[in-house]
Amino acid sequence: MAFMQTDTFTLRGYECDAFGRMSVTALMNQMQESANRNAIDYGIGISDLAQRGFGWMLMRFHLRMHQYPRYGQTIRLTTYPTLVEKYFIYRDFQVLSEDGTLLADAASTWLVFGMEKRAMVPLPDFIRQLTPPTILEPLPKLSTKPDFSTTSFSPDTEKLVEVGWLSIDQNHHVNNVAYVGWLLEAVPDTLLQTQELAELDLVFRTESHWRDQLNIQSVAETTETLLHRIIQQESGKEVLLAQSRWR
Amino acid sequence: MAFMQTDTFTLRGYECDAFGRMSVTALMNQMQESANRNAIDYGIGISDLAQRGFGWMLMRFHLRMHQYPRYGQTIRLTTYPTLVEKYFIYRDFQVLSEDGTLLADAASTWLVFGMEKRAMVPLPDFIRQLTPPTILEPLPKLSTKPDFSTTSFSPDTEKLVEVGWLSIDQNHHVNNVAYVGWLLEAVPDTLLQTQELAELDLVFRTESHWRDQLNIQSVAETTETLLHRIIQQESGKEVLLAQSRWR
Repeated sequence: MAFMQTDTFTLRGYECDAFGRMSVTALMNQMQESANRNAIDYGIGISDLAQRGFGWMLMRFHLRMHQYPRYGQTIRLTTYPTLVEKYFIYRDFQVLSEDGTLLADAASTWLVFGMEKRAMVPLPDFIRQLTPPTILEPLPKLSTKPDFSTTSFSPDTEKLVEVGWLSIDQNHHVNNVAYVGWLLEAVPDTLLQTQELAELDLVFRTESHWRDQLNIQSVAETTETLLHRIIQQESGKEVLLAQSRWR
Repeated sequence: MAFMQTDTFTLRGYECDAFGRMSVTALMNQMQESANRNAIDYGIGISDLAQRGFGWMLMRFHLRMHQYPRYGQTIRLTTYPTLVEKYFIYRDFQVLSEDGTLLADAASTWLVFGMEKRAMVPLPDFIRQLTPPTILEPLPKLSTKPDFSTTSFSPDTEKLVEVGWLSIDQNHHVNNVAYVGWLLEAVPDTLLQTQELAELDLVFRTESHWRDQLNIQSVAETTETLLHRIIQQESGKEVLLAQSRWR
């Protein structure tokens, strides 16, 4: 059976930024929450996987903000899997206003790792067999290696962050959305004050843990776009690569 | 007329910590949200005050966690004013589980400042005239200067934090709850891993702004309690004084 998850959220004050626009981190947290609920309906929730010795890992996430929801507004968030392959499962998100205007959407790619070796495995059968809904046109399939992820750069800005307790999720890893918070905090002040994020494209490379030191780097790519990189200071490992577009 | 605000929240994954317990910052954000809604019913919401050239400032907050709500649980949060005086208005919070168990409660004290001089003023008449509900017994009235706020200490730990964009609210000040996040992040690792916060008592002294450098200090007071202080690095001003109890 195919399941689509729809949740309705009324925006709380602390989910909005200094201009009363919904914060991108609050939106991504709600997307993650709805995805978890949808996965539970399919029998592939976090605990369904954990019982069998597996875990989910987010590999790609591409968010487009068409129009920012504002404080007090009610939004309708829908998510569902769009495609299952040998190694990857794809999931889309749609955010609509009460009158049906498309406010934001996102495409994402997920993989499964075996807990023992902490390495990627082919999707287990109970995941491969699932039936995605076919009502809606899927967003374009995300490339596993987008151009920005192979472009090397020397950063304009670098900022060291220590992973704190409040950024750790129930898997004892850094919550995916916490990286986005750090990345946005490292953007030049004038961008934050005079523009808004229109698009954010993310490649997650490895997990990180409590008290890790992370180096948050960014560079202006064009007049509209920035490139971002988060590196584990000690190991030098890349944790996240990203491209953002501003308007 | 007297108004009590009751909101029902089902705990989302990102509102919980690594152990699946509701995070104190998520709870305080929800308390703040419910308080805003209750204030609007009384005609003393943020924008009612702003129109008349006033603003709210939280001065005292005393939180007691009796039993932590957990991921997926539904909680019922009630808040209402308990007493209005010349300079201060008092507000209580209660958090109940679905079966009516008291999970947490909090007492708080608020004052009003004039926007022009940014100084405390006597409560304007439209606030002084309000009628608090009388159904519930108020929590003990908070002292304006609790003992811990006049105890000087040399810190065990100090941590410098820069106020980021995501910590700024629609008043362009640091959100009150952001301070609690920084304070908790600066607590020794073993406390976070092996104990839980039972009580948190806060004295807010001054506001701070985007890009301020804050020095987060703490010291063990007894085997059960810590003292905390947040200082504006440049001006040396005290922003927040606090005492926490752990179990």
